[in-house]
Formats: sequence, C-alpha cells, structure tokens
Amino acid sequence: MTGFSFDLVAQDGDARAGVFHTPHGPIQTPAFQPVGTRGAVRGVLPRDLREVGSQILLANTYHLHLRPGEETVRALGGLHAFMGWDGPILTDSGGYQVFSLADACAVDDDGVTFKSIVDGSSVRFTPERVVEIQAALGADVQMAFDHCPADPLNREMVSAATDRTHRWLERCVKRHEELGGTDRGQALFGIVQGGAFEDIREASVDAVCSHDLVGYAVGGVSVGEDPESMRIAVSASAPRLPAAKPRYLMGVGTPEDFFDSVERGIDLFDCVTPTRNARNHTAFTSQGRVNLRNEGFKEDPRPLDPACDCIACTQFSRGTLRHLCKTNEMLAGTLLSLHNLRFFHTLLASMREAIAEGRFAALRSQVLPAMTRRVGPDELDQ
Amino acid sequence: MTGFSFDLVAQDGDARAGVFHTPHGPIQTPAFQPVGTRGAVRGVLPRDLREVGSQILLANTYHLHLRPGEETVRALGGLHAFMGWDGPILTDSGGYQVFSLADACAVDDDGVTFKSIVDGSSVRFTPERVVEIQAALGADVQMAFDHCPADPLNREMVSAATDRTHRWLERCVKRHEELGGTDRGQALFGIVQGGAFEDIREASVDAVCSHDLVGYAVGGVSVGEDPESMRIAVSASAPRLPAAKPRYLMGVGTPEDFFDSVERGIDLFDCVTPTRNARNHTAFTSQGRVNLRNEGFKEDPRPLDPACDCIACTQFSRGTLRHLCKTNEMLAGTLLSLHNLRFFHTLLASMREAIAEGRFAALRSQVLPAMTRRVGPDELDQ
Repeated sequence: MTGFSFDLVAQDGDARAGVFHTPHGPIQTPAFQPVGTRGAVRGVLPRDLREVGSQILLANTYHLHLRPGEETVRALGGLHAFMGWDGPILTDSGGYQVFSLADACAVDDDGVTFKSIVDGSSVRFTPERVVEIQAALGADVQMAFDHCPADPLNREMVSAATDRTHRWLERCVKRHEELGGTDRGQALFGIVQGGAFEDIREASVDAVCSHDLVGYAVGGVSVGEDPESMRIAVSASAPRLPAAKPRYLMGVGTPEDFFDSVERGIDLFDCVTPTRNARNHTAFTSQGRVNLRNEGFKEDPRPLDPACDCIACTQFSRGTLRHLCKTNEMLAGTLLSLHNLRFFHTLLASMREAIAEGRFAALRSQVLPAMTRRVGPDELDQ
Repeated sequence: MTGFSFDLVAQDGDARAGVFHTPHGPIQTPAFQPVGTRGAVRGVLPRDLREVGSQILLANTYHLHLRPGEETVRALGGLHAFMGWDGPILTDSGGYQVFSLADACAVDDDGVTFKSIVDGSSVRFTPERVVEIQAALGADVQMAFDHCPADPLNREMVSAATDRTHRWLERCVKRHEELGGTDRGQALFGIVQGGAFEDIREASVDAVCSHDLVGYAVGGVSVGEDPESMRIAVSASAPRLPAAKPRYLMGVGTPEDFFDSVERGIDLFDCVTPTRNARNHTAFTSQGRVNLRNEGFKEDPRPLDPACDCIACTQFSRGTLRHLCKTNEMLAGTLLSLHNLRFFHTLLASMREAIAEGRFAALRSQVLPAMTRRVGPDELDQ
C-alpha cells in the first residue's frame, strides 16, 4: 500500500471527474493547485487556503533549494511542517525555473548549470540531484527533471529536449527507487514534452508511460506560446495517457484554459494566475475580469461578485477593495488572492459536478463567455 | 441612553480594570487598540484581529480624509462597513499627523493648513471640520482636534499649544453637539496637552474636564521625548482625570510603557509598535524582543514563543518564520503582526486580572524584566 491511488468517478467525453488519493488526503479532480513559490502562497494563511477550497499546494523546488535549502526544510520537519499545511503538497522539478529564470544556464546531457538568482553562485541540477532535493523537501508528489524547450514551435530544439527529458526520466526513476520509491510516501510523476508537435507529443507519451508511475504531467506549455499550440500539445498528450492515473497540466492557467484542458482529459492544474493577478488588483468573477483600481468602484457598496462566498465578497464592498488597492494595502492582495482562488476552486468543482451529470459542454457555454470578458463598473452586475 | 458608559471593576493603587461600553460592544480595559491607518490593519484580516483578542480598532482621520475621503466612507456605509469590523472603532483627530507628517504646515488660531502627502494639494483642518470629517467616517469614539507641540520641553511652545487646544476643544464640543452629540452613537473625547510640565498638564486636565465628555485622552506624548518626560506627562494628567470615565494615552507603546501608564491610571492605548515591528521582523515575546532574521533560527523547529497561542506560534516554527522574513514574504508581516498583537492583548488582559487580584506590582516585577530584553537564539528559551 503506497498511499496513492486514483479513482475515476465519472467521464463526459474525454473530461474526467476523479479522486486522487495521497498520504496526506484525497484530492477531488479536476483540481487547481495554488502556488506557494517559496513555501507560502503570498499573503495567504494556510487555514484560509483550506477555507476557499484548496486541496493541494504546489511549492517550487528551485526556490526552496536556493533558500532556505532542502536540508533546512528537512531539519524543520519537512515541507508539510515547514508550510504549516497538513494536506497534500506537490513540488515541481525546478526545470521550468532553471530554463526561464536563470541568468546564465548551460545544459548538457548530464544536467544543467545555472547561476543562483539569490547570490549569483553556480548551481548544478542533474536528474538525480533534483530527485534527492525533492525527497529531502518531502512533498507527496514530486516531478521528474525535464528539459522545457523555450520555443515549442522549433522542431529541432523540441525534439532534442524531449529526447533528453526521456533519458533524464530513466535516471529520475532509478534514483527515486533507490531512495525508497513510493513506499516512503512520495510519488514521482513523469513529464511529457514535445512542444506543439503532435507526433513528438505522442511518442513522448509512449516513452514516459513506459515507466509505471503514480501520475503523469504534460509539460512545456504556458511558456508564452499561442493558445492553439497549447491545445495541440494537450490534445496530442492527454487522451493518450493511462486512464487510471492522474494527469497534470503544468503552469496552466485561466478559466478558458481549464475548460479546454479538462475537455481533453486533464485532472490537475497549477498557476500563479489567481494570486499574481490578485496582487496586481485584478479579480476573476462570474461576470468577467475586473480591475479593482477603476474609479467607477469608488462608492460602490456592492460585493465584488455577488455569486461568491469568499471573505472579500461577503465582508467588503467594491468601494473598500478599490481603496485598499489604490493605497497599496497588503490586505488588497490577500483579499483578492482569496477571492480568485475561491473562484478557481468553485469553477473546477462545478466542472466536476457537470461531468458527473453529463453536461460539461453545456456548463462551458453557460458560464465561460461571461468569465472571459474584461468588465468595468458599468458592465458588472448588468 | 447614549450607548456609552464606563464601569470601574477594580482598582489596585491607581491602576484600574474596567469595562468601556460602546454602541458596537464593550471593551475590557486596560486595552490596546491596533492601528488601521487607512482603514485596515496592514496585512491582517478583521476576523483574525478578533481572534487574537482585539476589541477596538483605531483608524486615522488624516489618512482617510485624503483617501478615499470621508464622504466616500459614508457612501459605503460608514467606517464599520468600510473596514469590515463590527466592533468599536476610534478615529484620531488627525492632529498628530498634521503636525508630524505634513510637508508644510501653517497653524493659526482658527486651524491648520497643510500639504496633502497624497497629491501636494493644500488642505485646511479646523476644529469644526475635523469633527465633521469624523462624524462622516462614523467611528464610535472621535477625538477633539488638538495642537500637539513638537517639543514637549519647550515651555512657551507647549503653553501656547495647550491653550489653543482648549480653545479648539470648545469649538469641537459645540460642533459635535450641533451634529447630534453622543445621541447619534458617536462620542467625543477631549485631549489633555501640556508637554512634560506638571503645572501645564494639571491646568489642562481642569480645562478639558470642564466639558462633560464620554472620555478623556492624554496627548502630546510619544513624539520622541525621553521616557521620563512621558512619565511626568502621564503622572500629572491621568490620576486627575475623572475616575468614572475612560482614560486614553495616545500613541503608546511598549510593554514597559503599558506598565508605567496603567500604574498611573490609564485604560486605553494605541500604537503602531506591534504591527510596524512585525513588518520589520521583530517579535515581542514573554522572553524578550526577537529579530527573526537571525541566522541562529535557521533550523530551529520550536515555536517562536511557547507561551503564546497565536497562529504563528502554533502552526509555524522559528525556522519557517525566519525563512519567510529573509525572503520578504508578505506572510511574515501578517504572522508576526498577529503574534505581536496577541502578545500585547494577552499582556493587558493579564494586567486586568492582576489588578482585580491586587497584584499589579507583583505582575510587573514578575514578567516585565524578561520582556524588555533583546534576545537572540542563544538566550531564547534558556
């Protein structure tokens, strides 16, 4: 008994509702994972995350390796104690940060050398090292080290990065097993690459799924590509992944992305969208995206989203939220983060329900058009 | 029935335990008021303030007048709705900010003209205007407009400012009554001035108390003076104030200030100390003041203050708190604000209990010496 399993509860076309069981509790899917980059979701207490419906949190291996270091996290009792969160946690592999954040980054077949964004020192990540770091951090779900190509439309680059990702996966699986495998309560997910190329994606699914892992992820999306490239990447990967395992689309996204991807069989998401937008004073609502700094909200006593039950919508007016945004109060970011997360979690829960009732497509046409608008004070609530 | 009354519950020397009743609920005194400068205690949700024991919040008239403006607050339902806080609220008079923050500030006997820190425009405060602004904001307790002299040791300056404060109080009382007085659920407190001069303080108490007000404040302290000047100011003012009314020492302070002032008969305090120190990563604990950025806490799995029941102490380790501070996570300020406020509220509650049991002096010698130290990792918990 490894503590990990996936129950497929319902299907509607390729869309799935399920339960992903982990040693720290179950996750009803489809589910969104808030991002706690350095071990904390910015400005949000763990108990408030629980309240808005967060089931699993993501933390970044790259950032935690640099500060405070995985051995410090281990000495403090592991990531669950460190983050004050007793639910499931997933750590990414650091691959995305290495390739996108590092000042200087040199990839070779053995691994990657990059400069620390903290102190400029040289850091080396190999597949084995990344598995070891994540084992020390102690999340429930850990990601294999992948090479995420910068341009998903450059076939040569994508093909080389995908092949390398497969070679690295072999080494990750080996090191993960040497360290005790899933028996120690920590699962490894493999990552499919292949950019926006259907054939490379399909071959990558086959290569990655040749390893019997607890779950599989679709990587290499949300790197600045056009929406159509993402749809190709997901369409070519997701439905081909084993039906009995959870499928995680990394770094995504938005309400429209969720509909597009759940429709193609994705179960798990993560993104900084809700929290970063919140700190920039943009709220997702059932009626569209709202910039809270808008002058038109100045004396508006109504709740931000009357359909929402979060603390920002039940205890504050649009006018107060605007004031907190305009004066750059920390509480603006906190309240809007809680609201946006509540909105994301509620949306995915409503998809789950719709899938069980065979009306996923109907839900999409019913709620998505309003959500994707940018609305000002005049359009909101009309 | 105005909704305001003060019950003296116990006395121990000049130290008092009481209950100050307001239209939004009772306040067990001595009590500390967290400061919500612009209508929010930075980074802290109102419900979490309630949880750590906050009974009444303070908001700044000066800041709220500049942004969003008192008429906007009124249009949004008044300060209680605006702040999402249904307990008692006190607004200061803006006097302190006008004299300490204003770029250029010209005082005449009618009022003060100063430059807005927001947009540089010229703003005029008179006693009547300040009463009107506070009436629009709608706090339970409102403060008379006072002239707070910059140097409490300059006799001529202090004397002139104190006389002016008395003349302004007449006008505040008149305007407050014209607007409905305490019958509309809003009380006016008068402010005693007089710097560090015993005779001026005593005369000021008499002048201010010639008005039958709901409560009285001691102003003009915490402006950078030496501790002895503050003790003189409080000693000459507090015991002379009417026993049956609450006494509020403005802008104070620290655990040592609380003991010094409660001993002299003060009931209410406010200060940015707990929250500003928190954002600068300093914690008040039963064992002393702690700088959480200290390297020595890096792998310390113990709670910040084992004697504390706040969320920072029960759900996070010193090691995690240090990490959040070092990486400038918003959550560090939030968690340490909650801790410091919990510490202040608990300290004042323990004074209240000690007063009821006639052991206020014993409590002081028992707990204060440890609290006033600056302690590093080596001394904490030893």
